[in-house]
Amino acid sequence: MEKELIFGHRNPDTDAIGTAIAYSYFQNQHGYNTEAVALGEANDETSFALKKFGFEAPRVVKTVANEVKAIMLVDHNEPQQSVEDRDQVKVTHVIDHHRISNFATIDPLFYRAEPVGCTSTVLWEMFKEQNMEIPANIAGIMLSAIISDTLLLKSPTTTDIDKEAVEELAKIAGVDYKEYGLELLKAGTNIAAKSVEELIDLDAKSFELGSKTARIAQVNVVDVPEALERKDAFLAAMEKDAKANGYDLFMLVITNVLDSDSEVLFIGDDESKSVFAKAFGKELVDSEAHLPGVVSRKKQIVPPLTRAFEA
Amino acid sequence: MEKELIFGHRNPDTDAIGTAIAYSYFQNQHGYNTEAVALGEANDETSFALKKFGFEAPRVVKTVANEVKAIMLVDHNEPQQSVEDRDQVKVTHVIDHHRISNFATIDPLFYRAEPVGCTSTVLWEMFKEQNMEIPANIAGIMLSAIISDTLLLKSPTTTDIDKEAVEELAKIAGVDYKEYGLELLKAGTNIAAKSVEELIDLDAKSFELGSKTARIAQVNVVDVPEALERKDAFLAAMEKDAKANGYDLFMLVITNVLDSDSEVLFIGDDESKSVFAKAFGKELVDSEAHLPGVVSRKKQIVPPLTRAFEA
Repeated sequence: MEKELIFGHRNPDTDAIGTAIAYSYFQNQHGYNTEAVALGEANDETSFALKKFGFEAPRVVKTVANEVKAIMLVDHNEPQQSVEDRDQVKVTHVIDHHRISNFATIDPLFYRAEPVGCTSTVLWEMFKEQNMEIPANIAGIMLSAIISDTLLLKSPTTTDIDKEAVEELAKIAGVDYKEYGLELLKAGTNIAAKSVEELIDLDAKSFELGSKTARIAQVNVVDVPEALERKDAFLAAMEKDAKANGYDLFMLVITNVLDSDSEVLFIGDDESKSVFAKAFGKELVDSEAHLPGVVSRKKQIVPPLTRAFEA
Repeated sequence: MEKELIFGHRNPDTDAIGTAIAYSYFQNQHGYNTEAVALGEANDETSFALKKFGFEAPRVVKTVANEVKAIMLVDHNEPQQSVEDRDQVKVTHVIDHHRISNFATIDPLFYRAEPVGCTSTVLWEMFKEQNMEIPANIAGIMLSAIISDTLLLKSPTTTDIDKEAVEELAKIAGVDYKEYGLELLKAGTNIAAKSVEELIDLDAKSFELGSKTARIAQVNVVDVPEALERKDAFLAAMEKDAKANGYDLFMLVITNVLDSDSEVLFIGDDESKSVFAKAFGKELVDSEAHLPGVVSRKKQIVPPLTRAFEA
């Protein structure tokens, strides 16, 4: 069987990397010849999870057509979030939990998406459907992905299936998911050691919203006022990055993982600002807005913005 | 639970209608409130299958936003093959076995596609994964869909999973699938009673190929020379339909379901004709070409044309 690479989105998070590792195991058990790789370095949270369950960080690749003819995607489908030379290879499999946008293939493919909290939850269902045993370390990295994406089952993206998956996977992995979950989330919140440039890129994704190109970054913290001490520096870095890359607007979502609230920093033209106000029913004051209860970019930020930009 | 409609593509075939009926049963067992409908009248083959297993033909709808807020799709995803007001409702579920093209959602959704011979094969896997019993009449209509799409397991789209599904479903439905399959396929080949206008529309689908809009129709027959007696009338009707609807090219694929060969009638500009020749390694002679072994639009016609038009 010819080798295929499996990977998640750019600026990978624990779902992108963890699910790629677990899906590669799953597919190799089915006779495929796959390797999990990543489109960027593992972040602090992901590194914590990898170490906990005994995995090396996947090899980072910038292009794929130089080594394989076919690939499998996890946790994304939109081309601007994927590898830059994706149009030169064939996408044979996708597992995801996002909207579908600007994704097209020439041939039929295997595509499995569900509106659940994490791609690893979909994969967990696939293991169960086929009565396949999940090794403890694979269960651990899938558990980490679900905890990360659902903020320990508190994000509004969380479904009953995610909860069931977390309980079963925690048993297999042999950890107390509440205790481990807090450790994991906190491992990703140490922003003091990072520059504003790193922080606005760490978990940033690009989206086409109506005719606008939007960049939306998110950082998890336990202390929002500490993060906002660098507000002016954040805004300046966002402004610079937007100019350099042609983003019409740039949003930084600073999420308190303990309280499940977010503070948003926003740059963009007046039209984008008024669309923001329409989308969230809240005016930006001094480029900033408080969004109580908002923690999910996928469910609480991208859809209202998309609707407002397309209205 | 708010009602949702389930339907297949325009100019429905046995997969589009049969799988909509079976998926509606499946989803209602899961607590959804769905109704299977169709975007057109059942063809002769589908009517034969519906009658055999005791189903009424689904209600035909032209629009959906007037009655529901959300829909589920089977056997298609491309907008030009779907209901005309699809952009006014939410697509919550898709099961399919085609390429993904021009399909986009605002929110995450349930999407299940596999590169197998028929959408009912994917649905059969879903029944099995959940250990759900399949009633005999539902098994019969799913079996009919698979026989239809795979030309009784002879199309190159056929996989081992389709074969397994056919054998199991035939047992549940209590029919000899080879005997029933021939009856079913022959029920769809009585073209003598139909006008050329009806025949070029019966199983026609539109595709975006590069910058061209293509119309590709297919008719199943047991006697190709009989069909070709009306060649000039077919070409004139295709020409007229292309002009009226803005198709850059129109292909009629006349497939012998017993021999698994096809004769193609083709109209289009010189560029399209030379792209056809490149795609199939065969020049059109007098607007006609013989394509031995070609029976699958999805696998043997659309991909080579797409590649040739995009090259």
